[in-house]
Amino acid sequence: MKITGTFLDEISHDIPHQNWGREEWDRDFAHMKAVGIDTVIMIRSGYRRFITYPSAYLQNEFGCYKPPVDLVEMFLQLAVKHEMKFYFGLYDSGHYWDTGNLIHEIDSNRYVIDEVWKQYGHYKSFGGWYLSMEISRRTKGAVEAFRTLGLQCKGVSGGLPAFISPWIDGKKAVMAASSELSKDDSVSIKEHEREWSEIFDGVRGAVDAVAFQDGHIDYHELDAFFEVNKKMADRYGMKCWTNAETFDRDMPIKFLPIKFEKLRLKLEAAARAGYDKAITFEFSHFMSPQSAYLQAGHLYNRYKEYLKSLNNQ
Amino acid sequence: MKITGTFLDEISHDIPHQNWGREEWDRDFAHMKAVGIDTVIMIRSGYRRFITYPSAYLQNEFGCYKPPVDLVEMFLQLAVKHEMKFYFGLYDSGHYWDTGNLIHEIDSNRYVIDEVWKQYGHYKSFGGWYLSMEISRRTKGAVEAFRTLGLQCKGVSGGLPAFISPWIDGKKAVMAASSELSKDDSVSIKEHEREWSEIFDGVRGAVDAVAFQDGHIDYHELDAFFEVNKKMADRYGMKCWTNAETFDRDMPIKFLPIKFEKLRLKLEAAARAGYDKAITFEFSHFMSPQSAYLQAGHLYNRYKEYLKSLNNQ
Amino acid sequence: MKITGTFLDEISHDIPHQNWGREEWDRDFAHMKAVGIDTVIMIRSGYRRFITYPSAYLQNEFGCYKPPVDLVEMFLQLAVKHEMKFYFGLYDSGHYWDTGNLIHEIDSNRYVIDEVWKQYGHYKSFGGWYLSMEISRRTKGAVEAFRTLGLQCKGVSGGLPAFISPWIDGKKAVMAASSELSKDDSVSIKEHEREWSEIFDGVRGAVDAVAFQDGHIDYHELDAFFEVNKKMADRYGMKCWTNAETFDRDMPIKFLPIKFEKLRLKLEAAARAGYDKAITFEFSHFMSPQSAYLQAGHLYNRYKEYLKSLNNQ
Repeated sequence: MKITGTFLDEISHDIPHQNWGREEWDRDFAHMKAVGIDTVIMIRSGYRRFITYPSAYLQNEFGCYKPPVDLVEMFLQLAVKHEMKFYFGLYDSGHYWDTGNLIHEIDSNRYVIDEVWKQYGHYKSFGGWYLSMEISRRTKGAVEAFRTLGLQCKGVSGGLPAFISPWIDGKKAVMAASSELSKDDSVSIKEHEREWSEIFDGVRGAVDAVAFQDGHIDYHELDAFFEVNKKMADRYGMKCWTNAETFDRDMPIKFLPIKFEKLRLKLEAAARAGYDKAITFEFSHFMSPQSAYLQAGHLYNRYKEYLKSLNNQ
Repeated sequence: MKITGTFLDEISHDIPHQNWGREEWDRDFAHMKAVGIDTVIMIRSGYRRFITYPSAYLQNEFGCYKPPVDLVEMFLQLAVKHEMKFYFGLYDSGHYWDTGNLIHEIDSNRYVIDEVWKQYGHYKSFGGWYLSMEISRRTKGAVEAFRTLGLQCKGVSGGLPAFISPWIDGKKAVMAASSELSKDDSVSIKEHEREWSEIFDGVRGAVDAVAFQDGHIDYHELDAFFEVNKKMADRYGMKCWTNAETFDRDMPIKFLPIKFEKLRLKLEAAARAGYDKAITFEFSHFMSPQSAYLQAGHLYNRYKEYLKSLNNQ
Repeated sequence: MKITGTFLDEISHDIPHQNWGREEWDRDFAHMKAVGIDTVIMIRSGYRRFITYPSAYLQNEFGCYKPPVDLVEMFLQLAVKHEMKFYFGLYDSGHYWDTGNLIHEIDSNRYVIDEVWKQYGHYKSFGGWYLSMEISRRTKGAVEAFRTLGLQCKGVSGGLPAFISPWIDGKKAVMAASSELSKDDSVSIKEHEREWSEIFDGVRGAVDAVAFQDGHIDYHELDAFFEVNKKMADRYGMKCWTNAETFDRDMPIKFLPIKFEKLRLKLEAAARAGYDKAITFEFSHFMSPQSAYLQAGHLYNRYKEYLKSLNNQ
């Protein structure tokens, strides 16, 4: 299973910024391309008051800061240059994380979606939408809101695909800043299937692909969860992607690049389950030869060797 | 607003050491100079049993370890070479952090100040004093002690300036080792002004400049707090500096370099408030091209581009 | 006191992986050799489901994952090439950490020891055994189990030495993932001596050397503890090694390389106490010029200067 997409973690919640300029990003897109990545997904167009493009709407309505660079434009242009598809991640007001309520996200993104499509929709690299609010079975109430957002994205852009990347409420689903490393009441596979079937049913037609984060369950649980995910995706007419996390959730430093062996286990489980595509969170910090985390460059090399071994089979 | 001063974080409380020798420090002073830094401030001359110069007094009285290198001498010499001013940070016994009581700091620093001035006062780079114990409104009882220390520093050295770098008891004032990221009972601006006016009144004449740490409040609160700080500094006859923190307080890894956009917001707020000088905590880990944190080198590059854009205006 | 041994932290509990391949490891062994390291100790042959060599037994009985590389073979071969001794660390099922009970470790390692000796015992670099389960005075019940494991290791291999690396239940013995930095009820030296004398008595004949971790006590406590450790080791006929930790336990980031001054204090205390050997946890992350933590390369340089100064005395 080859990784063919990556998030671009701008604006970041919890991963320290690398302070790259256009030159570094251009070089990074080339590194991505060299290992077969054809899709880049900007994880969110803004988070609270920080935004990725000079949105008149968000500055006026929410007091967002004027961004020093138009990252949306830059990423779209680099995607054109490197022949990739760019997915636009919706604005995240932060209220959802605080309240579990998507009202603010619907209100703000109604304008953002129109503004962005008008301003950037002409780029041939504009390939789709990412509904950036993460859900798990705990936030089922959000389904209707996701449906609304997905339909608006698709409607305005002539049907460009929209996807979500939820998390499985599993063992390792603890807050990033917490000092605990696991969680007792992990969700069982049956509950997972029952509750997610409801969610999938609710968003069908509005969401084209679902890319579950693969880092919240243990490695020997992957096959069981992945099989169910693929079955549900097929049943409700969605593509089944995996979000192969390239950071290590098992370590006290939150977060550094994952051990290659762990990534391989996860990719091979996705392959066995017949998944359609693998994307990762995320290349530039955790897999790039120019990452500030030098372990990432070694992961890149191990991954390249792995690709080579696949091709020789 | 240009950063013209930096702390030298030796001995460190909470930032892992880079293990640099004289060669690396020499090179780092050159990197500082290249972006306009003319002031280096040794954050403390010792912390508990670790000390920066071979103080007979501290070794005999407090059981401090014999330091492998005389950092005070080295920094003073490098400051001469690179034409900078060096500020000496007082000894920190650690008792203050445990008890909020400055008695031990007064006792020990009475000797340290004399010893240091006798030993190093002849260096032409010896430019001032840093009262290294951090205060906030919670430690108002410490005011009298600060006054004593400041007056002694100035007295022994023919009036060389002394400064403090307190923290605002704001949203993000949580312990470095804590897993929480914010704090409910943040101080309001009015309380801040009332309580700090008392403190400023108490230390006037003994403290020449106050450099509030700028990282404990949210970015949209900067203008309001900075305006009050400048007003108070003017009223009580002090210089108003900003301590522009170059590490990111918003991330689970404590601490890596800040995103340039955030630094810029803080520097521009300081400029709008008419601040006299910007110093940073600190260049060598968080902004230096040779930092072990490679994000720092990129921050350096972004900052240089910013300086260039200011000059072109 | 020269460091002549290092752990190889594969599989890691808590230190993020560097993703090195054979080329990087080969180069790292050369870096080790250049500063006098003649002993490498694989910290454990497996942890829960991750293993370092393709053990048929562990895969069948415990559902361990097939490892992508045979690290045991690679390390043994590199040890031959660089003329070092390799110590094999036992399998760690993880149950001991959860329960304090070593039953599972005895059961599984009974097979692992035989399997490993049969498969790799012919390598001339196979130099000994490391009983990888860490004990402190709190886990005295484990003594009999340690005895059993040690005797089996020695029995199967014609008496190759076995060692343990326990921790002192001191001030800094807090969990890696905890946000606290110290601990009130540190053990007094008297208790330490009384309880460890019992443990040493229980494992004598089965354990040839004991390498206490040196990072759980304060620097000024080193002499007192080290003296007692050496006295006990002599009394019970064991070699007394120090496990000179090269990571810094005093910082919020868990864990980055230690400040050289601290390492030097610990090594010199071990020299004063007449210790037989110093090993470290561990070279490749915290002291290597090619570590992802660039502070490590500077530590390497400071350590080399120190070796040179020792030779010039």
